[in-house]
Amino acid sequence: MSKFKELKEKCWKANMEIPKHKLAVYTFGNVSALDPSEGIFAIKPSGVPYDDMKPADMVLVNLDGKKVEGKMNPSSDTPTHVVLYRFLSGVYSIVHAHSTYAVAWAQACRPIPVYGTTHADHLAGDIPVTEVMSDEMIRGQYEEQTGYQIINALKEKNLSHQDVQMILVACHGQFTWGETPDKSVYNAVVLEEIARMAYLSEQVNPDIKRMKETLINKHYQRKHGKDAYYGQAKNKQE
Amino acid sequence: MSKFKELKEKCWKANMEIPKHKLAVYTFGNVSALDPSEGIFAIKPSGVPYDDMKPADMVLVNLDGKKVEGKMNPSSDTPTHVVLYRFLSGVYSIVHAHSTYAVAWAQACRPIPVYGTTHADHLAGDIPVTEVMSDEMIRGQYEEQTGYQIINALKEKNLSHQDVQMILVACHGQFTWGETPDKSVYNAVVLEEIARMAYLSEQVNPDIKRMKETLINKHYQRKHGKDAYYGQAKNKQE
Amino acid sequence: MSKFKELKEKCWKANMEIPKHKLAVYTFGNVSALDPSEGIFAIKPSGVPYDDMKPADMVLVNLDGKKVEGKMNPSSDTPTHVVLYRFLSGVYSIVHAHSTYAVAWAQACRPIPVYGTTHADHLAGDIPVTEVMSDEMIRGQYEEQTGYQIINALKEKNLSHQDVQMILVACHGQFTWGETPDKSVYNAVVLEEIARMAYLSEQVNPDIKRMKETLINKHYQRKHGKDAYYGQAKNKQE
Amino acid sequence: MSKFKELKEKCWKANMEIPKHKLAVYTFGNVSALDPSEGIFAIKPSGVPYDDMKPADMVLVNLDGKKVEGKMNPSSDTPTHVVLYRFLSGVYSIVHAHSTYAVAWAQACRPIPVYGTTHADHLAGDIPVTEVMSDEMIRGQYEEQTGYQIINALKEKNLSHQDVQMILVACHGQFTWGETPDKSVYNAVVLEEIARMAYLSEQVNPDIKRMKETLINKHYQRKHGKDAYYGQAKNKQE
Repeated sequence: MSKFKELKEKCWKANMEIPKHKLAVYTFGNVSALDPSEGIFAIKPSGVPYDDMKPADMVLVNLDGKKVEGKMNPSSDTPTHVVLYRFLSGVYSIVHAHSTYAVAWAQACRPIPVYGTTHADHLAGDIPVTEVMSDEMIRGQYEEQTGYQIINALKEKNLSHQDVQMILVACHGQFTWGETPDKSVYNAVVLEEIARMAYLSEQVNPDIKRMKETLINKHYQRKHGKDAYYGQAKNKQE
Repeated sequence: MSKFKELKEKCWKANMEIPKHKLAVYTFGNVSALDPSEGIFAIKPSGVPYDDMKPADMVLVNLDGKKVEGKMNPSSDTPTHVVLYRFLSGVYSIVHAHSTYAVAWAQACRPIPVYGTTHADHLAGDIPVTEVMSDEMIRGQYEEQTGYQIINALKEKNLSHQDVQMILVACHGQFTWGETPDKSVYNAVVLEEIARMAYLSEQVNPDIKRMKETLINKHYQRKHGKDAYYGQAKNKQE
Repeated sequence: MSKFKELKEKCWKANMEIPKHKLAVYTFGNVSALDPSEGIFAIKPSGVPYDDMKPADMVLVNLDGKKVEGKMNPSSDTPTHVVLYRFLSGVYSIVHAHSTYAVAWAQACRPIPVYGTTHADHLAGDIPVTEVMSDEMIRGQYEEQTGYQIINALKEKNLSHQDVQMILVACHGQFTWGETPDKSVYNAVVLEEIARMAYLSEQVNPDIKRMKETLINKHYQRKHGKDAYYGQAKNKQE
Repeated sequence: MSKFKELKEKCWKANMEIPKHKLAVYTFGNVSALDPSEGIFAIKPSGVPYDDMKPADMVLVNLDGKKVEGKMNPSSDTPTHVVLYRFLSGVYSIVHAHSTYAVAWAQACRPIPVYGTTHADHLAGDIPVTEVMSDEMIRGQYEEQTGYQIINALKEKNLSHQDVQMILVACHGQFTWGETPDKSVYNAVVLEEIARMAYLSEQVNPDIKRMKETLINKHYQRKHGKDAYYGQAKNKQE
């Protein structure tokens, strides 16, 4: 029996949150969970409907992107996960989803402005969007390059992946991450809700302004700062 | 055993209406219920998911904002509830929610105009929105100041908190109140629906006008006036 | 035991379709069912939540608008139903609802243009909207006057109530009718869906045109004309 | 016992996906399934609610459009299915639906532009819309002419029905097809989601551009090209 049984179960359980929260239809979307001490992650198999998936179907992949256990092919987005795990220290779970409102902003190639406290409770700035991929990158190892797009976007915008745990890939969809599968899925659900609220806010007031910095920082710090006081333990984030 | 067992149960039950009516995701939102003779209210613990909450988890707080019973921290919005209970006589329950359409108007910093009878059945004027908080207030006791923002907005607009049982806090979300937990939750659900209808009405007709005063007053009075005739008893309001 | 037991059950069952199809929240909306041979109709009691309602709670009212049986007050909209039953021959059930998209058009005071075959399958023209009520009518018997608003709108637009079984009351909501409770509820659900589709169609194409007459008539006639061929029996309409 | 029992069951099961995925209300929409060796297809009976339908109610029709088995009338859209089966080789199932967002684009008479990878995973170009039907065609065999409208649209736009398995009929709704009932229903659900995402994307960015060709082709080929690598088997498409 695989010593990664628990990892697969955690990964499967997190994947089952995707249809539950309506983050994707059919087989779209995928969640992975990393065992950092072994350098192995579990990920959803490619093109398998959520209803049919069992914990044992999760595929194990190492940080070179090689399958190390599993009967099925891993998600075609696996190389993106590999790149993100390599570059984002302390990240042990990643979600990729095609949720409706997040996709709308990604297809519109616009970052999501901070319009309110729901957003600022999770992020002290706009939710970033990558550049549209260059033809050269598309013709290369596409899914791997998607990972580099994300890493480059964080670098260029000078964003920490601890502070910013969600990003839109232009013309595509969302990637979110966290220390645990619970947290990466939580971030995906929250991103979708923020995307929906921001869209509606612009419809209600086309001249809407970004929320002011003092209010952004107040809300972000009360949940994430060194003196955070939200939740049941110091620095607990949700 | 706590003599506030019943209060906690009422409070818990009202909190469970938040996810049921989709007024917030995860741990967002909170309801409190006051025992006016004791000057004690029960409120949701901070950052606890609704599915995991039991009646015994409700935290008891007095009107000085001090926890008097409970293992967990009370909602971080507790100081806002304290201020509202102090200033709004006859209010025994308060709801704070981040429901999607109410947030859209709050983020847009616009009051919701009376466009129809669904609105006027509950309120004879626009649903007010507070000012954006000043930097000075933000740097003070933020959640307490949020309470004062609401009290100030009612005062400046010359609104009675009996007639207007719902308000938008700019860039944030909704607060509603009532004599009972049922009523404060009812007001939160109704506000969300009114917010959605008003948004769609403006999309369907960008030149839409406020409903005329005679019609506003007719609908408000038939439910709330001294000769109210809606429902099963005189002056019964829903 | 009331000889109207069956009528009350039919009425109750139709009222329970209102929350099921999300045509209204809480106690909003109401359905009535007429026994034409007795001149008596059953209607929802005023201000009672759907979950708590039993068939025995339905109130019986005659065509003079007098309660003839029932412990509770009938819906406050009862006088509107009375007027409609008096003027609309062959109508044995009426629905009043506050469904979101129908209300949006009603609040926008716009008739819903025929943009597609889903609409034309049910109606060969726009879904009409009444005038905003005059102050004189508002100050009179308001709910009764709402009935006259509807009758007047049909007359002024030269519409037959057999062909047009749905209408928007300006700034208010929808009324639909039919030969049976099933049909009047069906019309309410269809109106909401047509209202939603028309709203979205205008958003997708602000220069959208009404569907052409030949196509409107073809779709209407295949379901409602003398040579109707939709469904399982000649002239069966849905 | 009919030797087409299995065909009827497959057809019934696929029809039951229509309400499950909210592709239509009441009796709207229909799915058919073809036995190509016999030249017989099963199709939903006309005007029967989904909840009441049993596998035995499916009607068998041959490719001349004649009913060969079944107590009820087949869907009034049967002649459209006949034309499509005759012209679209390798297609063994067809779906007709009135899903909300697909209808919005159909009523707006606009093809759906490729704005993102969710779209390009399924189609390397815009989702086409037919011309509005000429009066001559409307006055002819209308449902049969609807089939020719679709065939003509594919021909004029030089589109292969293997590559493009979904189309909007102007002012009407969607038709989708595939090798199996699972695939034709899948295409209907995906079309609705793409339609919704494209609508929202244009709202978020009115100056949105089509996604660039290199990215369209990359996504389409990774699922459908000769070296497709998505899913569990070579060329498996979802």
